[in-house]
Amino acid sequence: MTEITRADGRNIDDLRTVTIERGWNNQAEGSALVSFGNTRVLCTASFTNGVPRWLTGKGKGWVTAEYAMLPRATNSRNDRESVKGKIGGRTHEISRLIGRSLRAVVDTKALGENTIVIDCDVLQADGGTRTAAITGAYVALADAIEWGRRKKFIGQKSQVLIDSVAAVSVGIIDGEPMLDLAYVEDVRAETDMNIVVTGRGLFVEVQGTAEGAPFDKRELDALLELGVAGCADLRDFQIAALAEGDEASA
Amino acid sequence: MTEITRADGRNIDDLRTVTIERGWNNQAEGSALVSFGNTRVLCTASFTNGVPRWLTGKGKGWVTAEYAMLPRATNSRNDRESVKGKIGGRTHEISRLIGRSLRAVVDTKALGENTIVIDCDVLQADGGTRTAAITGAYVALADAIEWGRRKKFIGQKSQVLIDSVAAVSVGIIDGEPMLDLAYVEDVRAETDMNIVVTGRGLFVEVQGTAEGAPFDKRELDALLELGVAGCADLRDFQIAALAEGDEASA
Amino acid sequence: MTEITRADGRNIDDLRTVTIERGWNNQAEGSALVSFGNTRVLCTASFTNGVPRWLTGKGKGWVTAEYAMLPRATNSRNDRESVKGKIGGRTHEISRLIGRSLRAVVDTKALGENTIVIDCDVLQADGGTRTAAITGAYVALADAIEWGRRKKFIGQKSQVLIDSVAAVSVGIIDGEPMLDLAYVEDVRAETDMNIVVTGRGLFVEVQGTAEGAPFDKRELDALLELGVAGCADLRDFQIAALAEGDEASA
Amino acid sequence: MTEITRADGRNIDDLRTVTIERGWNNQAEGSALVSFGNTRVLCTASFTNGVPRWLTGKGKGWVTAEYAMLPRATNSRNDRESVKGKIGGRTHEISRLIGRSLRAVVDTKALGENTIVIDCDVLQADGGTRTAAITGAYVALADAIEWGRRKKFIGQKSQVLIDSVAAVSVGIIDGEPMLDLAYVEDVRAETDMNIVVTGRGLFVEVQGTAEGAPFDKRELDALLELGVAGCADLRDFQIAALAEGDEASA
Amino acid sequence: MTEITRADGRNIDDLRTVTIERGWNNQAEGSALVSFGNTRVLCTASFTNGVPRWLTGKGKGWVTAEYAMLPRATNSRNDRESVKGKIGGRTHEISRLIGRSLRAVVDTKALGENTIVIDCDVLQADGGTRTAAITGAYVALADAIEWGRRKKFIGQKSQVLIDSVAAVSVGIIDGEPMLDLAYVEDVRAETDMNIVVTGRGLFVEVQGTAEGAPFDKRELDALLELGVAGCADLRDFQIAALAEGDEASA
Amino acid sequence: MTEITRADGRNIDDLRTVTIERGWNNQAEGSALVSFGNTRVLCTASFTNGVPRWLTGKGKGWVTAEYAMLPRATNSRNDRESVKGKIGGRTHEISRLIGRSLRAVVDTKALGENTIVIDCDVLQADGGTRTAAITGAYVALADAIEWGRRKKFIGQKSQVLIDSVAAVSVGIIDGEPMLDLAYVEDVRAETDMNIVVTGRGLFVEVQGTAEGAPFDKRELDALLELGVAGCADLRDFQIAALAEGDEASA
Repeated sequence: MTEITRADGRNIDDLRTVTIERGWNNQAEGSALVSFGNTRVLCTASFTNGVPRWLTGKGKGWVTAEYAMLPRATNSRNDRESVKGKIGGRTHEISRLIGRSLRAVVDTKALGENTIVIDCDVLQADGGTRTAAITGAYVALADAIEWGRRKKFIGQKSQVLIDSVAAVSVGIIDGEPMLDLAYVEDVRAETDMNIVVTGRGLFVEVQGTAEGAPFDKRELDALLELGVAGCADLRDFQIAALAEGDEASA
Repeated sequence: MTEITRADGRNIDDLRTVTIERGWNNQAEGSALVSFGNTRVLCTASFTNGVPRWLTGKGKGWVTAEYAMLPRATNSRNDRESVKGKIGGRTHEISRLIGRSLRAVVDTKALGENTIVIDCDVLQADGGTRTAAITGAYVALADAIEWGRRKKFIGQKSQVLIDSVAAVSVGIIDGEPMLDLAYVEDVRAETDMNIVVTGRGLFVEVQGTAEGAPFDKRELDALLELGVAGCADLRDFQIAALAEGDEASA
Repeated sequence: MTEITRADGRNIDDLRTVTIERGWNNQAEGSALVSFGNTRVLCTASFTNGVPRWLTGKGKGWVTAEYAMLPRATNSRNDRESVKGKIGGRTHEISRLIGRSLRAVVDTKALGENTIVIDCDVLQADGGTRTAAITGAYVALADAIEWGRRKKFIGQKSQVLIDSVAAVSVGIIDGEPMLDLAYVEDVRAETDMNIVVTGRGLFVEVQGTAEGAPFDKRELDALLELGVAGCADLRDFQIAALAEGDEASA
Repeated sequence: MTEITRADGRNIDDLRTVTIERGWNNQAEGSALVSFGNTRVLCTASFTNGVPRWLTGKGKGWVTAEYAMLPRATNSRNDRESVKGKIGGRTHEISRLIGRSLRAVVDTKALGENTIVIDCDVLQADGGTRTAAITGAYVALADAIEWGRRKKFIGQKSQVLIDSVAAVSVGIIDGEPMLDLAYVEDVRAETDMNIVVTGRGLFVEVQGTAEGAPFDKRELDALLELGVAGCADLRDFQIAALAEGDEASA
Repeated sequence: MTEITRADGRNIDDLRTVTIERGWNNQAEGSALVSFGNTRVLCTASFTNGVPRWLTGKGKGWVTAEYAMLPRATNSRNDRESVKGKIGGRTHEISRLIGRSLRAVVDTKALGENTIVIDCDVLQADGGTRTAAITGAYVALADAIEWGRRKKFIGQKSQVLIDSVAAVSVGIIDGEPMLDLAYVEDVRAETDMNIVVTGRGLFVEVQGTAEGAPFDKRELDALLELGVAGCADLRDFQIAALAEGDEASA
Repeated sequence: MTEITRADGRNIDDLRTVTIERGWNNQAEGSALVSFGNTRVLCTASFTNGVPRWLTGKGKGWVTAEYAMLPRATNSRNDRESVKGKIGGRTHEISRLIGRSLRAVVDTKALGENTIVIDCDVLQADGGTRTAAITGAYVALADAIEWGRRKKFIGQKSQVLIDSVAAVSVGIIDGEPMLDLAYVEDVRAETDMNIVVTGRGLFVEVQGTAEGAPFDKRELDALLELGVAGCADLRDFQIAALAEGDEASA
């Protein structure tokens, strides 16, 4: 599986260079600037004591996410959604995906009546922005939860995070399944899949789309296998970032 | 797999009662009122000669879709998106899914510089509205293409449809994979998956989400198997509807 | 008055074929699919215990209506108002007309602090959509009130409906007053009038507009006479639908 | 009919004090500040050579109107529609009524491919704002047409205005039909009607609404008679204003 | 400094003809129709007992302003912001400036928990609309405060207004500083400055912008001197209007 | 002037730590991540050949700017303007200020029919975001112009930038004029002023606002002096950044 070399010299099962700069924003309760190659996403987690009205009194917390792209994150400038006065379908869809992915590893009862909003703003885009966002958002979320614990909004023994979560894109290009597509690969992919996997290796989301020809079960299995392995690597980056961070804030 | 009985008496691998009333709307170039049990979606296909500006002169056509729900399709009334002044994330997401699913079986070169807009309006909702919409939209699309052929906008020998497409939901309830979830089942599902499959049995979209606990590969495989079988049944309903229709319009 | 024959063979004082399918939607507290010829409107009535804030504590209920058209109800497709992000003047105007017409026959004190929202969605349009909507909405409203009574939100002896209400269009074409204009007639009409009349034969709304030459008192009188007779016929269809319905739900 | 005296001392068939200050705005091609008692509406007519794209090349002109109210025209302040981000149903409805009323007396062929937009902004409101707007808008329109003629955009002999048009409200209060309702009367009226009548005494619009009990034919006739007489008086004010104006601009 | 004569015959340090018609609107608690030459702005002040939620319980009042232009205030018609569905940057900016300028002379503690909203609607525009608006708004504000005192919402001895405030534009044209620019001057100005000055001669706002070449300290000083003198003259007009007004309302 | 020490230990005429990371974004034709202490703004310049329709054929280019803040740039989270569906007044006002400031140093004829859009996105806010944005935007603009020159969209000898431009805030706190206010200072300032100055020391914008007591000429002069000196220092940072950059890209 490793003989094909990609535009940027990677093997087909290689992630791009991954970095997670924890605490990049000094205003938020948790934050991370995550890079998957040239894709760079700033994730901030805002902790608020209390929950939206529709959840009040149920003893449960709420985690939600908003994704957006700066106008010049991409190769040509896009009009701002604030200027257009409405949010596009793609933005909505990705925000919802990030929120669901994070909630899958949160015990909202243990969180208590607190709200965490994760903002994922793409500063530079080169493919895989939603998967980088989920991967970085988990780190910001973990820090915001610790902040809430230090401030006594969350019980000292409450285990809010029941697992970790990371995400990666996979796709089939010229018939070959590949991991973590850069933009030039993404536009050529026949099939494009985003996979969200927990630290324990279970699926949270599997979203595969035939961009060109429909795909069969064998191809689907190959993509899933690549993606699960990629997420396991991302989990190590998350663990390392959170370990450093602990020292930093100590 | 068939001993468990569901709330409505179905086996776990049974579709609900499916009906496709072709030509229900007499204004559109193609239309179908599709029912999956109590879910009822009106699909209309509007054919226009010409393409949006960004496609002009490329010799290719365009197929797109818009999904919406009447305010009282559901058990309690929802405010209209026109009144709220913006379209929700869920609506956007489903519209995009339907459009992608249909384009996967269309040869846009063979379509020529023509545009087909498919509107899928949910008149009554009981789970699986997006999958019913895709299944009905295919029938409306097929009729609109025939209309374009009769009107000479499409060449007599152009094979615009390279395959058929249908969709169904599957999910895991109490640990058991089940086909075509009704609303009461959908809300209880631990994992929820929408599968879009062509007439030849290939995947166009696979969208699985862990609503409760994350799922493993074995569960994923079971769901895919159920969904592929369900889509094959739906394909037979589509074929029957289009056969009748041909006589009707003859 | 009966020698002129119209495009569809009707006499000038004939309604088109009228059907009222009560209970077409199984989610709403009241519903009717009403047809005036090829015009088809789905009316649903949503009953909620309680009233908007501005009415709270006054011991009165509220009845309101929203009218909309599916994008392909008409001969060529119209953009969705939800996509445009705003509701057009015509939509607003008709929604307000339907709401006023229904409130004219409702004793809001007898209704108690309950709210009924009537949605009138035009599935297919061929002229007279607002008059068909009012006529069908009355049936949906009557059923929603009965639902409220069964659920004890309304007193057993409260007479909420003080009369029935129906509506029809009339117009002058080639100098001749005609009843219940189809779309091809409507566009040719010199004068166009919508008349809303109670079961007892009193006027709720009279909206006459000179589309071509202004009209005189004699023409106005002729139109009013035709419209009142048409509404009396529509009232019989309403009575029949509600009678059937009673048996059906018994 | 003249023994009942109203709150402001008028007889039931009296207009309030009417003034029409022609040319109040020195930027517009035509303008009038019209008062019906304390109701004060600034009407400006903007003349543009050319027509909207959908009319181009048809040799016809276009006349349209926009109605709005200043936030503190009324007794308590209303939020601006620009701030709310959308135009209310009432505003839309009245704008459409004014536009239709003016077009009823315009020969768009004689106008040629020119556009006139009439803005009617209510500076102070005390009932009857839409009828005052129509009455003043006619004067602004007449001046804008003369401006177009002087600038040679309209042929010297083209008779663009085929009649004049004015409007007045009538209503039934305590069972008594009355002319030109002030706000305190308007809120008490059982039936409320707006009548738009040409200089020759023909109807352009008749919009009657039962606010309380439905009305019968005899009441309708009484209201129409009062309204036609009121419009004839308003026509005299229009003629006087335009006569003065001619001298003023001479 | 007085040898240069301007298009309208003024000296460079002359204001245009200023008029302030107090109480022009009979609905508002305070109002003024202010003219700076052909610029005409209707200012109304709406007094409400109570404050916005975010201020509740702090014992302080709130003063805010909204600025807008009628579509045909200017030489060619502008689309309404209500129709466009959003407020432009210029409108926002001027509304904020007016609000800040008024608050600078209000003791919000003395005002008590009351809200005054000032609407400044430009009926006719010929340069300097924001400065005319501030100057007129002060008069409307003063009257609304007196109204609040008469109604006992404000204590008899509370000194709510700690100073008066007026504003004027100044600019450099062909190298020459000039006072109170008319539109034809404004578009030619190299530097444009709006100066808001209290009755005691102190600055509330200084907003200078290089439209052409940047300016130096000497030019800035010359403009400030002209503006301060102009505001002193405007203060006399305000005093005169408020004096008259007192008699009028007595 | 240097004895008072501020919260962060600065003298009253000290800037905070200033950094300008040129080329931070690799997608844009010019970019800079600028920091004034904890205020961090990402400025990107997007170069497009061609101009907006209203400028076409005039032989001139166009430079404009958009300012925005990430939701968690500030101490507590703000809702996104894209989610609210409209841009606030403050955002509009600052975008306009940045655009005007940059245009003041651009010769649009020398730029030719090219458009440069500068996006200034505040990633972290601690006072002075608009002045940091202007200062960084100039660097991004300079690079985008060089890009246009290399790509031959701009003539090799065209001198597009006729000067440099920088901006700084000044304010009076406890009666003392101070340079470059951090957020904690900004909220306490009695007078707040933003000054935009060219490299040659001329004023482009002077915007002074009395937040508390109005200010006099002497205070105004002291603030201007501080601001001019601060802008001269910022100009040195810009020169240094652009010098480095040249080597980097060489």
